Amino acid sequence: MNPLLIQVINPNTSLAMTETIGMAARAVAATGTEIIAVSPSQGVPSIEGHFDEAIAAVGVLEQVKRGKAQGVDGHIIACFGDPGLLAAREVASKPVIGIAEAAMHMATLVATRFSIVTTLPRTVIIARHLLQRYGFEHHCAALHAIDLPVLALEQDSGIAQQKVREYCIQSLHQDGVGAIVLGCGGMADLAQALTRELAIPVIDGVSAAVKLIESLSALGLTTSKHGDLDYPVAKPLSGMFSTLR
Amino acid sequence: MNPLLIQVINPNTSLAMTETIGMAARAVAATGTEIIAVSPSQGVPSIEGHFDEAIAAVGVLEQVKRGKAQGVDGHIIACFGDPGLLAAREVASKPVIGIAEAAMHMATLVATRFSIVTTLPRTVIIARHLLQRYGFEHHCAALHAIDLPVLALEQDSGIAQQKVREYCIQSLHQDGVGAIVLGCGGMADLAQALTRELAIPVIDGVSAAVKLIESLSALGLTTSKHGDLDYPVAKPLSGMFSTLR
Amino acid sequence: MNPLLIQVINPNTSLAMTETIGMAARAVAATGTEIIAVSPSQGVPSIEGHFDEAIAAVGVLEQVKRGKAQGVDGHIIACFGDPGLLAAREVASKPVIGIAEAAMHMATLVATRFSIVTTLPRTVIIARHLLQRYGFEHHCAALHAIDLPVLALEQDSGIAQQKVREYCIQSLHQDGVGAIVLGCGGMADLAQALTRELAIPVIDGVSAAVKLIESLSALGLTTSKHGDLDYPVAKPLSGMFSTLR
Amino acid sequence: MNPLLIQVINPNTSLAMTETIGMAARAVAATGTEIIAVSPSQGVPSIEGHFDEAIAAVGVLEQVKRGKAQGVDGHIIACFGDPGLLAAREVASKPVIGIAEAAMHMATLVATRFSIVTTLPRTVIIARHLLQRYGFEHHCAALHAIDLPVLALEQDSGIAQQKVREYCIQSLHQDGVGAIVLGCGGMADLAQALTRELAIPVIDGVSAAVKLIESLSALGLTTSKHGDLDYPVAKPLSGMFSTLR
Amino acid sequence: MNPLLIQVINPNTSLAMTETIGMAARAVAATGTEIIAVSPSQGVPSIEGHFDEAIAAVGVLEQVKRGKAQGVDGHIIACFGDPGLLAAREVASKPVIGIAEAAMHMATLVATRFSIVTTLPRTVIIARHLLQRYGFEHHCAALHAIDLPVLALEQDSGIAQQKVREYCIQSLHQDGVGAIVLGCGGMADLAQALTRELAIPVIDGVSAAVKLIESLSALGLTTSKHGDLDYPVAKPLSGMFSTLR
Amino acid sequence: MNPLLIQVINPNTSLAMTETIGMAARAVAATGTEIIAVSPSQGVPSIEGHFDEAIAAVGVLEQVKRGKAQGVDGHIIACFGDPGLLAAREVASKPVIGIAEAAMHMATLVATRFSIVTTLPRTVIIARHLLQRYGFEHHCAALHAIDLPVLALEQDSGIAQQKVREYCIQSLHQDGVGAIVLGCGGMADLAQALTRELAIPVIDGVSAAVKLIESLSALGLTTSKHGDLDYPVAKPLSGMFSTLR
Repeated sequence: MNPLLIQVINPNTSLAMTETIGMAARAVAATGTEIIAVSPSQGVPSIEGHFDEAIAAVGVLEQVKRGKAQGVDGHIIACFGDPGLLAAREVASKPVIGIAEAAMHMATLVATRFSIVTTLPRTVIIARHLLQRYGFEHHCAALHAIDLPVLALEQDSGIAQQKVREYCIQSLHQDGVGAIVLGCGGMADLAQALTRELAIPVIDGVSAAVKLIESLSALGLTTSKHGDLDYPVAKPLSGMFSTLR
Repeated sequence: MNPLLIQVINPNTSLAMTETIGMAARAVAATGTEIIAVSPSQGVPSIEGHFDEAIAAVGVLEQVKRGKAQGVDGHIIACFGDPGLLAAREVASKPVIGIAEAAMHMATLVATRFSIVTTLPRTVIIARHLLQRYGFEHHCAALHAIDLPVLALEQDSGIAQQKVREYCIQSLHQDGVGAIVLGCGGMADLAQALTRELAIPVIDGVSAAVKLIESLSALGLTTSKHGDLDYPVAKPLSGMFSTLR
Repeated sequence: MNPLLIQVINPNTSLAMTETIGMAARAVAATGTEIIAVSPSQGVPSIEGHFDEAIAAVGVLEQVKRGKAQGVDGHIIACFGDPGLLAAREVASKPVIGIAEAAMHMATLVATRFSIVTTLPRTVIIARHLLQRYGFEHHCAALHAIDLPVLALEQDSGIAQQKVREYCIQSLHQDGVGAIVLGCGGMADLAQALTRELAIPVIDGVSAAVKLIESLSALGLTTSKHGDLDYPVAKPLSGMFSTLR
Repeated sequence: MNPLLIQVINPNTSLAMTETIGMAARAVAATGTEIIAVSPSQGVPSIEGHFDEAIAAVGVLEQVKRGKAQGVDGHIIACFGDPGLLAAREVASKPVIGIAEAAMHMATLVATRFSIVTTLPRTVIIARHLLQRYGFEHHCAALHAIDLPVLALEQDSGIAQQKVREYCIQSLHQDGVGAIVLGCGGMADLAQALTRELAIPVIDGVSAAVKLIESLSALGLTTSKHGDLDYPVAKPLSGMFSTLR
Repeated sequence: MNPLLIQVINPNTSLAMTETIGMAARAVAATGTEIIAVSPSQGVPSIEGHFDEAIAAVGVLEQVKRGKAQGVDGHIIACFGDPGLLAAREVASKPVIGIAEAAMHMATLVATRFSIVTTLPRTVIIARHLLQRYGFEHHCAALHAIDLPVLALEQDSGIAQQKVREYCIQSLHQDGVGAIVLGCGGMADLAQALTRELAIPVIDGVSAAVKLIESLSALGLTTSKHGDLDYPVAKPLSGMFSTLR
Repeated sequence: MNPLLIQVINPNTSLAMTETIGMAARAVAATGTEIIAVSPSQGVPSIEGHFDEAIAAVGVLEQVKRGKAQGVDGHIIACFGDPGLLAAREVASKPVIGIAEAAMHMATLVATRFSIVTTLPRTVIIARHLLQRYGFEHHCAALHAIDLPVLALEQDSGIAQQKVREYCIQSLHQDGVGAIVLGCGGMADLAQALTRELAIPVIDGVSAAVKLIESLSALGLTTSKHGDLDYPVAKPLSGMFSTLR
């Protein structure tokens, strides 16, 4: 197997978060796998709702197109709402994995039920919709929001990290779950330490997605081009979108 | 009640379709209600998959912002995938209705089960996901695709229209349903004639959405700003998105 | 469009409630729409369980038959259990809307999730069953009962109204919802004031149903007579039911 | 255990069908169990839709009240739509079982999936709703309608019986099921012969319900009077309903 | 009807529990029905998880084979996880009923919603999975674990029994249910006293299963041998399993 | 990362199939990963129903115990019914993956909907139950059985392989899916060639499971020992099971 080139797309424009995410990806990548951590040059600095997601989705598509031109072997959408996931799958010829999807799948492989700890309360609905779409509603026992914005995770104070930890401990005692999913790309660096400290699987989707891309690649599987994920129907894109295909 | 100003947004850039949609909206609008039919200046000429939808969603948000500045009383997203619906609800202070949503809701009020007739097979998955999201999976007995692109509906030949009619008749005989939902904004002008000819409700979402906006408005109800549909968290939008807020 | 004649059927025999309901209907009716608020001459004074509903359903059917003879343009079943809804649709040639149905549909158009505030705890199961039937189980976060009988809403003390308000406020703080549905026809007059005071959509089904009837009418849509909502199979009705067809 | 007195209520007024049902009940009743087969003195001669069901429900309640006065040990609602089931449970102090419910429960105990063979196509939706309410949607693979009215089963020609048999055989070959549920009280006398001929369980709800009543009785279990199936709230019933409590 | 011979299989090797279960079965058996209470000669002394269940399932199959050789008329699997239920149905020619299944079915016949009181928290997931499989997720409002091991129920102290009672009372006040299902074969002797004391149906699956076997038998129904519950495909079983067929 | 030792357990006793499965596993294993393909010394030669599965589950547990003693880094249950999966997770300290689970998860990552092609019709119900348990009911469009026994796949004729291919092609044309899951461990060697020939993802669970074990291992995640997958409660196992712990 040739070494892989995996593109990790931070859908927001925060470079600090792109770095956090890139490091989390590199920490688990197989020997030889190269991680390119990118983010859109234009868009939103953090993603905390459907509006932010809609904008971020375009940035994701741009980066997927760029990654495709570079010949990457897979694309990761590193925001817990998996913005633009199916659109990106249409564009890509290689696998595309969202981090919410990745973390949820992994959680169901190590526990019968899991909880999610996310940032703002308003993003809970996004996770709910994904659970329904992916089929994991019955596997998720509770959703918790630490009630701090995404970028609080990039500040030095450690307050957001502490809150994540507290909610994980609370979930462990109250929710009757065997695993916890971290519901934000900016929490990627917390999973391993919490897994060790709390002695339960605390799952980060960024690293999970890296392994799923590597897995699909090794299996010779890629996004199906038969049916509804086929390349987009060719048509002229106008204005600011003209560079998108 | 003051006369209403309703913005009907065709999320694609096809002006012919914008006109079809605008006429369908005006045909049912209450006396005094004014319809502004708009489409993004940049984007995709038709929407036939998730990629097209992701691009169209940004155009929808731009138009919602513009409509809000104009003081419209409600916004309609006139593409059967309801692209950008929840994002638009965050932006808007007034009601926002998608035409898939509108048609499906109306269908459940006049029949116990309905079918959907849409354009390309690859768009069926979009309708499936919406049925799940909106809660109408059990109310939809079958999804049919005429296997012609969206813009075939704007051609003079009438072939696409004929196919829509044929699938409606077939559905009527085979699916055990009481109503049919037309699954494309470009079919908006067919509903009334088919309803009369086939003697069952054949439902167009554009006109349905107009009435729902008028209804919400008369009821003094608008998009909830409590919780997850509150206005987007204020943050700098960069690059081509900088005009979006 | 000709002015409409809408029949609002209070399924119980309480004339005070019929009046409350009629006023709520008139308050939102379009100019020219005429509201006939009726109630069965025989039946139950309030509806607080399945037994009451079964009796009320017959009264609803009588009134629908009467309204049909009068040439009304639509029928509303103004009890939150929507008693006799599908039976009434069989009898009617025009649209029939239940107020639970109307309120729930409207709630999903302005919020991602809603709560219900109803009267007696024993009626909660009726709302649960309707949520399942209509497809809105995932949209309803909580059901609350003020634990007062329906007719307490018709007393002058204001105690029931105060309890409704308290439960709405509690729901607003605890349930993570964006809207509240009032679960009793007798609460119809509270919705607008609570909507204003609490600054979230508080939805009454009576007024919502009026707008849905007007909407269907303007769209040229009516109860499907193809399939299972066709007129009842003609057969002799005996005894006290002999006047029902 | 004392001998039981079980009231089998045919919700329609067809005496021939009451007799068919009564015989089916007696054929399986335990030694000592006495079956009283009754039908309302007024109502509909057959039940083929929601309208018929709404009328029949009142007849069911009258009979339950009468049976209660007679001191019966349980009530059976012998129409496949289980009309008035929850209302009857409120009225009764003893168990009440619907035949659709009874047949469906039994089917899940002897096969992983079953089919239903019913009368008119328009009654299929009633069975669908019951499957959803009772939780058996995933256990039912197909619903078939012989497309003959209920009373065809009471004619001497045997045509309806022949059609039932044909659909059972077809289901056996095509549906991938292990059992068939007969979807009409008027088919009660066919189950045993078809079970023997086709060598699969063909299930009649009337006889199944008799055994469930006997079972609950032997277990000392009866309709819960704690919560939402408690006796109806005492209130004056007016007009033709005044005798109902 | 000939007297029946029903085999009640305690899937664990605890003879004290076999006796408890046998007595509960005999207490409700029809006159003439003979109960054979058995347990595997080898296996686990109590069943408190999936591992225990997997072992117990083999013991169940051995006993079913033995019972079949003895000519029993039905088999009961008397552990709340219903271990080996579908496998046993393949082996048996007569009905096989699990006690979880039996109790849950009965509960839905006397209440709209029920709670479950079980032993260790780790067994809750087993009940959850059964609720999903059987279709009763919506009928179960809450699951409670007394947090004592199964065999605590066989000790003389009465502590476990007291805890069961406390949880039933708590459920009665908090869960909004009409019935309670006891989630362990070892609780079989508690149901009748709790039913009387708490005045709601408290349901034991052992006795419920006896009546369901008797019911199916009287109805001439048995496990379908058409399709996926047919006898196992004949093949050589090796080693310690060689006696299993 | 140290090289991994993965135990692939063929739950049946067919050594030819163990070899097929072992080769499929080795074909995708990462450099350094060592595959130990094992099968129980006693049990069933093939698994074609619930009875076979119950027996196989014990063999699986024995092998998991043995693998654990050997210090393997993960266990794969290489039969499409995932027999004994949760029990094995209780026993293991390392990850355990079933091949049905693995294939289904992978399928949802590359297509919106998939079909399953399995062996005997009677095993379809097992796949159905797993789809429900895992949450993928909505992702599976169709289940096909080639109607040949499992061991036909080990014969030299190639007939079974040809049938698998035919069903895949038929599914590709009729089911509206983007991927196909092969529903038997004995089909493991067909996936890659079919993926190439049909140009859609044809997914084998054995190889998929290898990559998931490697992934979890790299992520530092293992079966949760908090809650219901904790090690089995310590208790004496008697008779032929005494070696199981």
